[in-house]
Amino acid sequence: MDLGEFQIPGNSDPNQKTSHLSLDIGGCQRLGALPIEKTIIKATGGGAYKYADLFKEKLGICLDKEDEMDCLVAGANFLLKAVHQEAFTYLDGKKEFVQIDHNDLYPYLLVNIGSGVSMIKVEGDGKFERVSGTNVGGGTFWGLGRLLTKCKSFDELLELSHQGNNRVIDMLVGDIYGGTDYSKVGLSSTTIASSFGKAISDKKELQDYQPEDIARSLLRMISNNIGQIAYLNALRFGLKRIFFGGFFIRGHAYTMDTIAVAVDFWSKGEAKAMFLRHEGFLGALGAFMSYEKHGLDDSMIHHLTQKFPMSSLVGDKICSPLNGELNDNESIECSVYAS
Amino acid sequence: MDLGEFQIPGNSDPNQKTSHLSLDIGGCQRLGALPIEKTIIKATGGGAYKYADLFKEKLGICLDKEDEMDCLVAGANFLLKAVHQEAFTYLDGKKEFVQIDHNDLYPYLLVNIGSGVSMIKVEGDGKFERVSGTNVGGGTFWGLGRLLTKCKSFDELLELSHQGNNRVIDMLVGDIYGGTDYSKVGLSSTTIASSFGKAISDKKELQDYQPEDIARSLLRMISNNIGQIAYLNALRFGLKRIFFGGFFIRGHAYTMDTIAVAVDFWSKGEAKAMFLRHEGFLGALGAFMSYEKHGLDDSMIHHLTQKFPMSSLVGDKICSPLNGELNDNESIECSVYAS
Repeated sequence: MDLGEFQIPGNSDPNQKTSHLSLDIGGCQRLGALPIEKTIIKATGGGAYKYADLFKEKLGICLDKEDEMDCLVAGANFLLKAVHQEAFTYLDGKKEFVQIDHNDLYPYLLVNIGSGVSMIKVEGDGKFERVSGTNVGGGTFWGLGRLLTKCKSFDELLELSHQGNNRVIDMLVGDIYGGTDYSKVGLSSTTIASSFGKAISDKKELQDYQPEDIARSLLRMISNNIGQIAYLNALRFGLKRIFFGGFFIRGHAYTMDTIAVAVDFWSKGEAKAMFLRHEGFLGALGAFMSYEKHGLDDSMIHHLTQKFPMSSLVGDKICSPLNGELNDNESIECSVYAS
Repeated sequence: MDLGEFQIPGNSDPNQKTSHLSLDIGGCQRLGALPIEKTIIKATGGGAYKYADLFKEKLGICLDKEDEMDCLVAGANFLLKAVHQEAFTYLDGKKEFVQIDHNDLYPYLLVNIGSGVSMIKVEGDGKFERVSGTNVGGGTFWGLGRLLTKCKSFDELLELSHQGNNRVIDMLVGDIYGGTDYSKVGLSSTTIASSFGKAISDKKELQDYQPEDIARSLLRMISNNIGQIAYLNALRFGLKRIFFGGFFIRGHAYTMDTIAVAVDFWSKGEAKAMFLRHEGFLGALGAFMSYEKHGLDDSMIHHLTQKFPMSSLVGDKICSPLNGELNDNESIECSVYAS
């Protein structure tokens, strides 16, 4: 999203000359004109470093950098505690909200899927460790997807995948085993043995495949891979809950379904993937929470969340990924507080 | 390889009407003419099921099917015990043979990288479990590689990757963090944050990228991913050694280097990837070993291995992947014993 598209709440106090915003800025952004001066923006993510000079030069805005992992964790903890129906499971097209007992929240694994993927073991407020990650993430889906299809946007690629059939291009166990299961090791004939494996033997060139089948195969490959690595890390650290967030998911049914199936498959039903309603706002919310360090205490935060309830703070009507209002190539997510 | 290219040892005993061969047959093969009748071939891999009728119809050959995992494990165990310099580590372009104490071989993780990847916990002769795997394997590398480049063979794609630079297309931590490390979580600026992530923001189309850069990025993405999942599984089951085999590796320096670096990175130096000199022959060797079940006892196997020592049985001069003599789209590997 261009920053020019931001709706900045008006500053009703003439003595207050500074607006406070918080951003989670990914690696690749376009910047538009933002006619605000004397503005401090709490910013996190790699872009907070990469674009700091550009923000200052072009927009006169100072980016007040906050650590990305700190912010992701603070944001997730806040959401899981403050929002009644924040976490949900997703299987067979069915969303089920999970009520989290605040006293039984920790430890958990937070899997943030942006361009790359971070996996963070969270043990409490500010108590966490980035234990793993993978370079096969949203950037891989969109990067490979751009090269392999004519899609012009991430959302178009996601939408396309919805119509596709990955079996056209993936090699299934049944393709290898003459249509049968490999039941001795628990692999059904429909299990993907090799993503894109059919392209080995087909005489087809890229243009002979339907873009929607490629998109579906790509989405399934990446979602399944992330689900598997996440589960293995949860198991390694004895974490019973895995929450998935980040701009990659975008509330997309098939993405969530594939991740959920992967976790279910690899854990043999022992673990369940959980998703967050405000998946794309963890970093921005965490950056917002960090104002506390600068003089906003708990009671003020409480007051603010009352004044700007979740529905307006990070809800569907502003720019939630859940309602698909985001633009191409989106990875600035924002929460806005005007003091 | 077409079966027509097989060199079948002559049958010197006129009373012996059956030749014994063993094959590990992958999912996608072309069959040539093989002028042999009354031949039984021990066969394993999915193709042993998929192509059984075709072998019989076109070649008059009966495939005597052996379980794939049984054969992989039997082959690996045999090689690790029988061949003096079978296993080696590979790091920074340096191969170092590891002498395995037969009394301290088990347990280990066997990672067989074919079209897909199987990960097998091996605890003894015939004592094993396929504990994991991934659908991102050799078929994914070659399938995606075919679609993204003009390469006509797996080996050409591998060779091409050797000349490429993945930084052109991968998004590195430094690309996100304005050229700096994200040292707080131990990520250097040169770590890949997102494979193919630069293709998100570039204005380039597929044809604007060099195929060698794409090949390199693809190889690194897949090798790194396999190394990571293998390490997590070794850790999960407390396995101190990880052996990598299968036709994907093909003795390719950069593939081994990337897998080794991945295992080193994710284990923080605690684990080392090991490779097998006869990486592509595990299944075929295991199928060969299974003749034992059919009347060949240990002493006969011993006799045979003396008569056909490793150098001729599965050595470089027949069709070892180590010397690059294999043809396009190769995944039949053979060991031959003529009784």
